[in-house]
Amino acid sequence: MRAVRLTDWKTFPELQEIERPKPGPGEVLLKVAGAGACHSDVSLFAEFDASMGLPGLQPPYTLGHENSGWVEEVGEGVTGFTKGDAYLVYGPTGCGRCAACARGEETYCENAATNPAQGVGLGRDGGMADYVVVPAGHLIPLGDADPVAAAPLADAALTPYHAIKKALPVLNRGGATALVVGLGGLGQIAVQILRALTGATVIATDMKQSAMDAAAARGAVTVPGGDDQAARIREATGGRGVDAVFDFVGAAPTLKLAMSVVAVGGRVQVVGIAGGVVEWSFFTAPYESVLTSSYWGSVSELHEVVAMYRAGQIEPDIQRFPMDQALDAYRLLHEGKLSARAVVVPHAA
Amino acid sequence: MRAVRLTDWKTFPELQEIERPKPGPGEVLLKVAGAGACHSDVSLFAEFDASMGLPGLQPPYTLGHENSGWVEEVGEGVTGFTKGDAYLVYGPTGCGRCAACARGEETYCENAATNPAQGVGLGRDGGMADYVVVPAGHLIPLGDADPVAAAPLADAALTPYHAIKKALPVLNRGGATALVVGLGGLGQIAVQILRALTGATVIATDMKQSAMDAAAARGAVTVPGGDDQAARIREATGGRGVDAVFDFVGAAPTLKLAMSVVAVGGRVQVVGIAGGVVEWSFFTAPYESVLTSSYWGSVSELHEVVAMYRAGQIEPDIQRFPMDQALDAYRLLHEGKLSARAVVVPHAA
Amino acid sequence: MRAVRLTDWKTFPELQEIERPKPGPGEVLLKVAGAGACHSDVSLFAEFDASMGLPGLQPPYTLGHENSGWVEEVGEGVTGFTKGDAYLVYGPTGCGRCAACARGEETYCENAATNPAQGVGLGRDGGMADYVVVPAGHLIPLGDADPVAAAPLADAALTPYHAIKKALPVLNRGGATALVVGLGGLGQIAVQILRALTGATVIATDMKQSAMDAAAARGAVTVPGGDDQAARIREATGGRGVDAVFDFVGAAPTLKLAMSVVAVGGRVQVVGIAGGVVEWSFFTAPYESVLTSSYWGSVSELHEVVAMYRAGQIEPDIQRFPMDQALDAYRLLHEGKLSARAVVVPHAA
Amino acid sequence: MRAVRLTDWKTFPELQEIERPKPGPGEVLLKVAGAGACHSDVSLFAEFDASMGLPGLQPPYTLGHENSGWVEEVGEGVTGFTKGDAYLVYGPTGCGRCAACARGEETYCENAATNPAQGVGLGRDGGMADYVVVPAGHLIPLGDADPVAAAPLADAALTPYHAIKKALPVLNRGGATALVVGLGGLGQIAVQILRALTGATVIATDMKQSAMDAAAARGAVTVPGGDDQAARIREATGGRGVDAVFDFVGAAPTLKLAMSVVAVGGRVQVVGIAGGVVEWSFFTAPYESVLTSSYWGSVSELHEVVAMYRAGQIEPDIQRFPMDQALDAYRLLHEGKLSARAVVVPHAA
Repeated sequence: MRAVRLTDWKTFPELQEIERPKPGPGEVLLKVAGAGACHSDVSLFAEFDASMGLPGLQPPYTLGHENSGWVEEVGEGVTGFTKGDAYLVYGPTGCGRCAACARGEETYCENAATNPAQGVGLGRDGGMADYVVVPAGHLIPLGDADPVAAAPLADAALTPYHAIKKALPVLNRGGATALVVGLGGLGQIAVQILRALTGATVIATDMKQSAMDAAAARGAVTVPGGDDQAARIREATGGRGVDAVFDFVGAAPTLKLAMSVVAVGGRVQVVGIAGGVVEWSFFTAPYESVLTSSYWGSVSELHEVVAMYRAGQIEPDIQRFPMDQALDAYRLLHEGKLSARAVVVPHAA
Repeated sequence: MRAVRLTDWKTFPELQEIERPKPGPGEVLLKVAGAGACHSDVSLFAEFDASMGLPGLQPPYTLGHENSGWVEEVGEGVTGFTKGDAYLVYGPTGCGRCAACARGEETYCENAATNPAQGVGLGRDGGMADYVVVPAGHLIPLGDADPVAAAPLADAALTPYHAIKKALPVLNRGGATALVVGLGGLGQIAVQILRALTGATVIATDMKQSAMDAAAARGAVTVPGGDDQAARIREATGGRGVDAVFDFVGAAPTLKLAMSVVAVGGRVQVVGIAGGVVEWSFFTAPYESVLTSSYWGSVSELHEVVAMYRAGQIEPDIQRFPMDQALDAYRLLHEGKLSARAVVVPHAA
Repeated sequence: MRAVRLTDWKTFPELQEIERPKPGPGEVLLKVAGAGACHSDVSLFAEFDASMGLPGLQPPYTLGHENSGWVEEVGEGVTGFTKGDAYLVYGPTGCGRCAACARGEETYCENAATNPAQGVGLGRDGGMADYVVVPAGHLIPLGDADPVAAAPLADAALTPYHAIKKALPVLNRGGATALVVGLGGLGQIAVQILRALTGATVIATDMKQSAMDAAAARGAVTVPGGDDQAARIREATGGRGVDAVFDFVGAAPTLKLAMSVVAVGGRVQVVGIAGGVVEWSFFTAPYESVLTSSYWGSVSELHEVVAMYRAGQIEPDIQRFPMDQALDAYRLLHEGKLSARAVVVPHAA
Repeated sequence: MRAVRLTDWKTFPELQEIERPKPGPGEVLLKVAGAGACHSDVSLFAEFDASMGLPGLQPPYTLGHENSGWVEEVGEGVTGFTKGDAYLVYGPTGCGRCAACARGEETYCENAATNPAQGVGLGRDGGMADYVVVPAGHLIPLGDADPVAAAPLADAALTPYHAIKKALPVLNRGGATALVVGLGGLGQIAVQILRALTGATVIATDMKQSAMDAAAARGAVTVPGGDDQAARIREATGGRGVDAVFDFVGAAPTLKLAMSVVAVGGRVQVVGIAGGVVEWSFFTAPYESVLTSSYWGSVSELHEVVAMYRAGQIEPDIQRFPMDQALDAYRLLHEGKLSARAVVVPHAA
């Protein structure tokens, strides 16, 4: 079968012909419906190297951690699946025996440092291929919803969903306000989730006007950059400040903006991994405002994301690529030339 | 000034001319914009009597516990108000010194049994008059929103808001479902609040088709009564059962319906005071489902309700009555002939 | 190896010699350290029958759902275990692929009706034997804590822990009060957990004076039965009523007691399965009090229970029985002649 | 009567003879039982000045914001108090009409910038006097508990209680850990509250050995400063990191320590106002750890603090000073020569 392989650090992936895998005990073989190309894949092939100490990520393996597909074959001990049924794949793979894994929070596996892989497509073979093998417990049924458009949900929707769910206690009341900073794939879905799950006024900002227009069409109040950006955001909150800021960039200027507009008792959730630094002190941060990060999500949260997708509350913006153009997708992504999530579709409809 | 007075138990109210009151220390005199006529007023003049032991409700006094108005005069020690500004009135009046009152939950005042009144229009003079005196801390600013349509928010919106807010932990996730039983004034607003604050599928039921149509227009999935009602509700949840049931009737059949459709881990909030009885046992109630009641709400919740109203998320259905038709409003209400909340408007626009 | 087998409904178990099992993929074979005898085992052999429709419980199988042991052998694909290390076993076995199992709440598996077993010792072979096979993800490390006394934690501590954890929001503040009704194995551990995890005044009641004495020694305020029981309990709360009642009996009189002493906004958690019925209505239940049930617990909660055990915060009262007296343990349990949890210890120290 | 007056900025207070005040409407006159001398009083007389823009703090006024006393006289409209009964005083005074005041969170009054005072003893006359006038809703009944030792609870216990209560969601389970940094008056009470309300292992650190000894006697595991401090703290958590850090210092080194030992998903609550700065970034803060501040507390929380005090769960360390030595108390406090909270006792027992 065909597979997009990460062969080594600092090496552009290759489209190779490899053996079709067999599902082991407790595993399921999926015929891939869609595989999303994620910015973190670019980090894998263009930025990381062995010196960085990245446990469980050592090449070679097939890329793709946003996967959906149809059940093709089940491994020993697996029951309850019907061939041809469509599923979305939860990507992270923990040890399966610690307290975090026991809650389905495999992203916070206590044995992450010694696990052989971090996830499907992250240290073990992913879904950027004709077929992929995944643990049975990582499959979320898609019913009759489109499995191709679903693929990016595994990361691009689960990540903002998880961040927003943690912030719901400050958003779930009349008069709340939220701010989404950075309106790429995750930010656009964040706007949709906030609009669906809360009654908050959703304020959104990005440097690209087209991204702001898309957010506005989804019900956000948009505020462009500029010297008066913080003042205009605060004004949109009636002066009180923002209850929950979701920063999908994470650079020093966006962190600074976040801390300057958050309300007393509000919450800044940093999701973007630009790695910016912010200086925090008792007197500069609004009283009892919270500064925190958020990373991917849990299995049960992905069940909830799929429920929203099936109910039409989340619609990812995608661009389909056939398998033989998968490398083009990565090239365009790397060059910043995509305006929607690239989803590789190995099998024609 | 004119006032609708409850003169005695089991006695239809009278429209009387009385002295215009003066605000005492810590109080504000409002020129009344609107005063809602509530079903519990009917209980006061038609059902209750002295034998029932109703502390703090002894007539005579002016009716009206859903009030809005413009600041006319402030009492000693009151600052921060401007004559002519519009406010909504929080009705319950507690002792002001217990732990419940300290949280603004005057409905749960620990000294309720000995307080001189239960609220504005409930033991002390209410707003069904040209002017009303209220505690300064019970006023919520309405800004430039219509104060007349706002009047019913003080009970008909605060009560479902409080019930829904307590249930948010089971509703705030993808794939949740809610059921509203009884689509009168409170039920219609419950549908609006649920649609605004959650992403839940809102199922609604009532015996009147017109009420169901109104709920459907507000985004609810309606299910009529009948033998298969519970089955159809369960089907609308995908078979899993309802996460949160709000029963605005509270009669034996609606309680039974609620318990028969609630999901494992779900919540039944009984708001209606029909006084029905349900038999509960470990084996008949779904595992870890919760059965509970809900009564009115807190001052800070009314701030949140007003924020939703000002944002256009709550639109009460009202029917305006001039002051000299106030008794007609009560008569129609008593006879069940109103299809919207009656709001008495003492002063022409 | 030796095993205590449930051979059929309505049939006292037998001590049989059977083949030592092999761990399948994803499983671990434990050499049993301790196996607790639970009241629900008595239901299995003395009360239940095929007509009751008990999916996943059909005999024959080995009893024992409160198990601890030492790793003897691991199945295919299992890593991270060292032979001889001691573990406690999480009993319930769900489908492993639904949203509930994804959270480690296998007790609430959405596919319970079609699962082949309900748990280890409940439809599949349990730990009342020399060896037991369990899913690797169901093992909680015991470190150097005594594995024999740990065995009952799997049910007799996890069940009250789960119930208490759900009630913590009403208990976690100064001045809270809790009531434990029924001071058998679970009730005694409930007292210990409440004393450790909350600052609440813990009130406890039982018909046996010795059980009350044990609870008093653990820091509870005890109140005996009698006509003035509810009044005395209320008095111990300063008149306000109990914030959280844990009813480990669940009979009509204990449910009635619970509802009569619970505070406004309090919580009644019914854990005992005596199946009593209580009549609930808006006017008889204190405002916003909650009536709910609680059943067993989750994998991650068992991690937390083991942490408390290892910290010395939970000490189960146990009575050890060698393997060849296992049937005596069940006989005494059935006859109500045990005053501590019977733990069968197959291998001498 | 005698009163300790702040006469001007940068001026040591004076003991003056002034007129005994009368309670206004809604107010109560207390005969003072005890008035605590707090570090923030030192800021008022030794550090602040007019240039700092401190709304509602302008001298002159009587100091003392940790007050207890006996009811002497009530103002107009005040009911429910009996002369001679003992009360603790909630210090902050908000506008009484915003949403924050409606929840009893007067510390977060939305009109703080324009209020005439920040609190009793903070812009309006405080309790460092023979008598003090306070709002009736700010009084918490002490029953027969010692009112003198109670005085410091109003700040030195309410402040850590509020911080801890916000952190309870990460502390309320088996196996949790907490760290208290800085073991002065607030830190010692924090240890007591954590021990009473949670089952967490409480780790404590201070530069003074005597403070650590006192914390150890209250059940804390103490860790001294030094190069391996963070490593030793982490070791005391079993390697996982601390679930909730309470920093009662707030200097750069303590903030750095806090961030270096907090667990994944843990919480750093900065209470101390030394004003240190910490550099936060996505990659240096443990995943989903929270960095936040905490300031004083709410009226209802003070009710809960008093409940703990009356139950013997909080015992402040105090040193009594008669009224004519009140200035000595401030002098010793300023010079850092007190080892317990100074409480001025105007009236001999």
